[in-house]
Amino acid sequence: MMTKRVKEILNHYPGENAGVLTNLARLMMSGRLGGTGKFVILPVDQGFEHGPARSFAVNPPAYDPAYHFQLALDAGCNAYAAPLGFLEAGAAEFAGAIPLILKLNNHDVLHDEKDPLSAQTASVKDALRLGAAAIGFTIYPGSSNAQIMYSQLRELALEAKSHGLAVVVWSYPRGSDISKEGETAIDVVAYAAQIAAQLGAHVIKVKAPSSHIELAEAKKAYEKAKVPIETLADRIRHVVQSSFNGKRIVIFSGGATVGDEQLLAEVKGIHEGGGFGSIVGRNSFQRPHDKAVELLGKIMSIYAS
Amino acid sequence: MMTKRVKEILNHYPGENAGVLTNLARLMMSGRLGGTGKFVILPVDQGFEHGPARSFAVNPPAYDPAYHFQLALDAGCNAYAAPLGFLEAGAAEFAGAIPLILKLNNHDVLHDEKDPLSAQTASVKDALRLGAAAIGFTIYPGSSNAQIMYSQLRELALEAKSHGLAVVVWSYPRGSDISKEGETAIDVVAYAAQIAAQLGAHVIKVKAPSSHIELAEAKKAYEKAKVPIETLADRIRHVVQSSFNGKRIVIFSGGATVGDEQLLAEVKGIHEGGGFGSIVGRNSFQRPHDKAVELLGKIMSIYAS
Amino acid sequence: MMTKRVKEILNHYPGENAGVLTNLARLMMSGRLGGTGKFVILPVDQGFEHGPARSFAVNPPAYDPAYHFQLALDAGCNAYAAPLGFLEAGAAEFAGAIPLILKLNNHDVLHDEKDPLSAQTASVKDALRLGAAAIGFTIYPGSSNAQIMYSQLRELALEAKSHGLAVVVWSYPRGSDISKEGETAIDVVAYAAQIAAQLGAHVIKVKAPSSHIELAEAKKAYEKAKVPIETLADRIRHVVQSSFNGKRIVIFSGGATVGDEQLLAEVKGIHEGGGFGSIVGRNSFQRPHDKAVELLGKIMSIYAS
Amino acid sequence: MMTKRVKEILNHYPGENAGVLTNLARLMMSGRLGGTGKFVILPVDQGFEHGPARSFAVNPPAYDPAYHFQLALDAGCNAYAAPLGFLEAGAAEFAGAIPLILKLNNHDVLHDEKDPLSAQTASVKDALRLGAAAIGFTIYPGSSNAQIMYSQLRELALEAKSHGLAVVVWSYPRGSDISKEGETAIDVVAYAAQIAAQLGAHVIKVKAPSSHIELAEAKKAYEKAKVPIETLADRIRHVVQSSFNGKRIVIFSGGATVGDEQLLAEVKGIHEGGGFGSIVGRNSFQRPHDKAVELLGKIMSIYAS
Amino acid sequence: MMTKRVKEILNHYPGENAGVLTNLARLMMSGRLGGTGKFVILPVDQGFEHGPARSFAVNPPAYDPAYHFQLALDAGCNAYAAPLGFLEAGAAEFAGAIPLILKLNNHDVLHDEKDPLSAQTASVKDALRLGAAAIGFTIYPGSSNAQIMYSQLRELALEAKSHGLAVVVWSYPRGSDISKEGETAIDVVAYAAQIAAQLGAHVIKVKAPSSHIELAEAKKAYEKAKVPIETLADRIRHVVQSSFNGKRIVIFSGGATVGDEQLLAEVKGIHEGGGFGSIVGRNSFQRPHDKAVELLGKIMSIYAS
Repeated sequence: MMTKRVKEILNHYPGENAGVLTNLARLMMSGRLGGTGKFVILPVDQGFEHGPARSFAVNPPAYDPAYHFQLALDAGCNAYAAPLGFLEAGAAEFAGAIPLILKLNNHDVLHDEKDPLSAQTASVKDALRLGAAAIGFTIYPGSSNAQIMYSQLRELALEAKSHGLAVVVWSYPRGSDISKEGETAIDVVAYAAQIAAQLGAHVIKVKAPSSHIELAEAKKAYEKAKVPIETLADRIRHVVQSSFNGKRIVIFSGGATVGDEQLLAEVKGIHEGGGFGSIVGRNSFQRPHDKAVELLGKIMSIYAS
Repeated sequence: MMTKRVKEILNHYPGENAGVLTNLARLMMSGRLGGTGKFVILPVDQGFEHGPARSFAVNPPAYDPAYHFQLALDAGCNAYAAPLGFLEAGAAEFAGAIPLILKLNNHDVLHDEKDPLSAQTASVKDALRLGAAAIGFTIYPGSSNAQIMYSQLRELALEAKSHGLAVVVWSYPRGSDISKEGETAIDVVAYAAQIAAQLGAHVIKVKAPSSHIELAEAKKAYEKAKVPIETLADRIRHVVQSSFNGKRIVIFSGGATVGDEQLLAEVKGIHEGGGFGSIVGRNSFQRPHDKAVELLGKIMSIYAS
Repeated sequence: MMTKRVKEILNHYPGENAGVLTNLARLMMSGRLGGTGKFVILPVDQGFEHGPARSFAVNPPAYDPAYHFQLALDAGCNAYAAPLGFLEAGAAEFAGAIPLILKLNNHDVLHDEKDPLSAQTASVKDALRLGAAAIGFTIYPGSSNAQIMYSQLRELALEAKSHGLAVVVWSYPRGSDISKEGETAIDVVAYAAQIAAQLGAHVIKVKAPSSHIELAEAKKAYEKAKVPIETLADRIRHVVQSSFNGKRIVIFSGGATVGDEQLLAEVKGIHEGGGFGSIVGRNSFQRPHDKAVELLGKIMSIYAS
Repeated sequence: MMTKRVKEILNHYPGENAGVLTNLARLMMSGRLGGTGKFVILPVDQGFEHGPARSFAVNPPAYDPAYHFQLALDAGCNAYAAPLGFLEAGAAEFAGAIPLILKLNNHDVLHDEKDPLSAQTASVKDALRLGAAAIGFTIYPGSSNAQIMYSQLRELALEAKSHGLAVVVWSYPRGSDISKEGETAIDVVAYAAQIAAQLGAHVIKVKAPSSHIELAEAKKAYEKAKVPIETLADRIRHVVQSSFNGKRIVIFSGGATVGDEQLLAEVKGIHEGGGFGSIVGRNSFQRPHDKAVELLGKIMSIYAS
Repeated sequence: MMTKRVKEILNHYPGENAGVLTNLARLMMSGRLGGTGKFVILPVDQGFEHGPARSFAVNPPAYDPAYHFQLALDAGCNAYAAPLGFLEAGAAEFAGAIPLILKLNNHDVLHDEKDPLSAQTASVKDALRLGAAAIGFTIYPGSSNAQIMYSQLRELALEAKSHGLAVVVWSYPRGSDISKEGETAIDVVAYAAQIAAQLGAHVIKVKAPSSHIELAEAKKAYEKAKVPIETLADRIRHVVQSSFNGKRIVIFSGGATVGDEQLLAEVKGIHEGGGFGSIVGRNSFQRPHDKAVELLGKIMSIYAS
């Protein structure tokens, strides 16, 4: 049953057509966190982004596309996000079981570049024929190729929305002008969230921010206004604020595999700071199925609290 | 959670894309009968088909589009079906609450004709922007205008399927060559179900058949093969068989308002004969909300048994 | 300043895009009645529909397209509605002065028929380049050509909405199955309003209804439910109810020129019954400019009370 | 392995693209008669054309779409032809097992008319997505609606050929100017074959002709030229000649169920007269599976001799 | 007759339409290996890719397009793959004799670049008019132009699938960031297979991998998970696993001409490792016809064992 909180979040998207709202509702009403307005999403694009062995060798059943549908389902995730091939291979078998997010662009590391450009690898029409609830798209703010990706997103988002699909944007700062540390700097992450929101994203995915500040001009502003960025919860609060004052759903990734304690502590910080949830890829599918379900269960328990 | 029975029914639609299967699954996994493979759908097109006073004066809250969304939801229906205007007026407010079927054609009685032709009143693009799970389309086999409607359905169904939408066909025999009694004759109803199935319908809606046989050639066939048509259950069984041996979902309408006893007896017959469910319009929205929920509850209890 | 009442009315169109809402707001925030949620619109399509002499000979300045823009402006109307040529001739000169409604179809009497079919005479693209706030479209429910017009409206409304334009539908029952008296019968007018609403109209224009009931089946329903239809206010109330329980803007025309007393009495009835306003053509532009401004002023005073 | 005879027949279609030739070759290289240039095709459109009970009650397993795929396969037919619904229900399961012909138009008897017009019920796009080798289309030469069907065929055949699909035309003379006897008259059947060939059919299906001559002018010509039409073989030879001197594949139907002796005698006549084969519907699926396989086997043995 | 193994493989492509499944079945049911689920394909694009003399001077009859159709046929290959011109020149003559794969892009060495970009040289419409069973497309993961090719494939694959064609992807790592040795490194080949699968390929063609590991990050993963890559069979097994755990057909090329012993040993390794087959170009058409048939026969014997 539709909850007050989900209704409240949907009200942040007035003027969107009923199709978009329906698909946003689907994302929020599915799985164990259904109805809370919180999200735990399973994304599996690492096969494309990092290569198969780096992604799956540590847990070989994960080579199989069906594995991830089942994992997302067993863990009670809100949605499962993947590139075209992985969704095509299982969407019919798992039809109706869990909302899907089709990633429309992807990047591989066989040609690695300082200023990355993701390739368009699927279409809005694919999302519709696969029954996906949303399209996913990655932008790399800071890349010298960012304009190309912003412009591709512009067209795909317009087409997706007119066909009733929600738009999820992965916003990952990277490029020759940003330091490695800067990629997760609080000012840069907040900026990346803002850019995604301004590009019309319904759901925004960024990395959990550090307390580092990358840009000199930004530093002045943070100091002058005394923006609290000491604790993770502070920083999450700032990113949520930067996402239209909390009117856009913003979720966080943990990135590379880390110890469980550290991961759960981070999730607590995200939750405390008002983040809408987590997207947990490698930390889930790179361990055995039951261990992954257990970990995802702990994460959901935090968000449900 | 997806049930074995729903999976079994979905397997009757091999080769359909995952989008179509997802939307069929949505219809079968929603509401109180979710997971049973049985259907109770609320259709409200009578405002268009018969006029507002004839439809709603007896229960004035039903003039309001929101009323029907809420009724379908409160009663636990699988889906709510209506023309463009009624869905536009409530789909955003009720986004994600219940699967919708957008009726793409409608007929009014201001110009009544022996050989009716429904007007196209909405598009597949409307269904997508409204977040509908399926398009609905009415054909009048027996009308001299039937060819036009078959051909319109052909194009709309192809477009709908390629965009991942399910196709629900109302198949109502009417026309200058069919007697009033013939419109619900067992041979004619079974024929109407077959035609809808051959036109590519995923879900077929026909009227509950009487034991009358309309066509002379058919009469010979029924007698020669001793097709049992005495009880309603017998006749339902025959219509289900005529819908690709039960491989197409076929549901039944009760037509005009009747006494509850009679209606529930009919539902028992439909259930006993293996029918997939009922579509209950006037018998639900033309009585007070709570009485309607009560009646629909009784109907669902029969199908759930 | 946006008023509470206008906000309230806009809330009846959830899920419409901001462009559509903006144009609906423009119609409601313009002129002397701006902010009240009431409408007085000047329509001038009689040159096309009845011929120039029948329309303008009695007040020759009205041959000039600029005349009507100025009249609507001087009188403080919410909007001015006309066919392509009239708008093209003045829209640039009066740009920004008053909201425009471009009528996309029109009918002339050089070829008169029992079952009329209006010709498409302008496009959504025309409406955009002319800066119109809405498209206008006439349907003739009851005509054997009604299906064609419904289907044309379906396509034009979808296109208009996706381009952010509002949709105004003139719904005039006419055809070989409807008596002359029936064209304004309460059941037929309420039905015509319902059909326009179901076809997705944002604003509906019908004729003020008489207490005659045309259809036998409808008569039973009115009598059974004891729908009050004695006074004009009663009947207006019923038509408003038939327009999605007042969730669609429904306005009324007076038809042929009548005495001012009679016209103002009718307006009082419309206002008392909860109608959203009047569309006053011949009764305004077929008298001298100042007399017209005076009469329209009196009408607005009633709606403003 | 491609045979000389099949090559020879393909050479009758010079200038057709390789896709069309490939699909014609598929039809000729499949099943037990593969390579002989002879055809036995299973067509099952009677569910649509005559109604389900008249078609299947005598052999109830035939209500199931999968039954006919399996029957055609078990009997070793060259191809299976059916309307959209029947093919959609089994094409994925039987993918690659047997060439399919999608019938793009169909006619039902709920509205029966002297001058029939088949409704378009599927598209070339459907044929492609279903993996069909050919489209099928019925024309009724002699119907006052014939021009409409010729013109529809013109467009569909052009589209089909440009997409590499073969075109099979059912040419059945019927209409208010043709007597019942005339429908199978030798002059009329030969004329129907010629019309189909002139419309661009690759494969033509007509009824086995009687020795009756319908048209007075034709009678003179047959008598003057002493065209032999006494035996069935004579008449078949004449129809084959009328199909571009044997350069178009022309096959024959037996029509209503008849005794096996009579049917086999007819097949012998067709074979002797140089006919390319038989299309056997009701005589096969209206008897038990094994009996049907047996009968079809006998027919194939005649053509293989 | 369709085999259990072919059915099993087709079941890895649920949700694909019957047309795609039919063409995949055609590829698997043709030639000497028909029914085994194994493939030997003859590809001849070297005329375009390397120039005519480098390709054909050593065996001049191979300059003739007909030569290769006949060779593929005589050897009993599953399919013949070539660019537009070669197929146009022979597809009509060999219609129906052998499944064709039309390569939609090609690259020549007149302009050689470190980061290659294949040119689109044919269309899906060409594939249809030529009667091809599949489109072929080459991507160069690792090229700085890879994104362009991925995006082209995205559009062509969507169009091909909706028209019922299968999609075969040649995935050849090449580019300024990859060493010559790296092009066949196990990690790079497995990655290339994964990328093709994620882009929606039904059949993937890669080079037989060496035990070299190119990428530092990958090296860690292989070592950590102790992925066995010592023998060719080990490595093939890993590539098959990387192709959706064996749910995508992956076949291997031998590349440059080598000694027969070495080639056959390699084929044994591919077979032992669970590879789906070989694509053998230069090693077949650059020797006399009979020798080529002999060699291909030996290869097929290995796969049939």
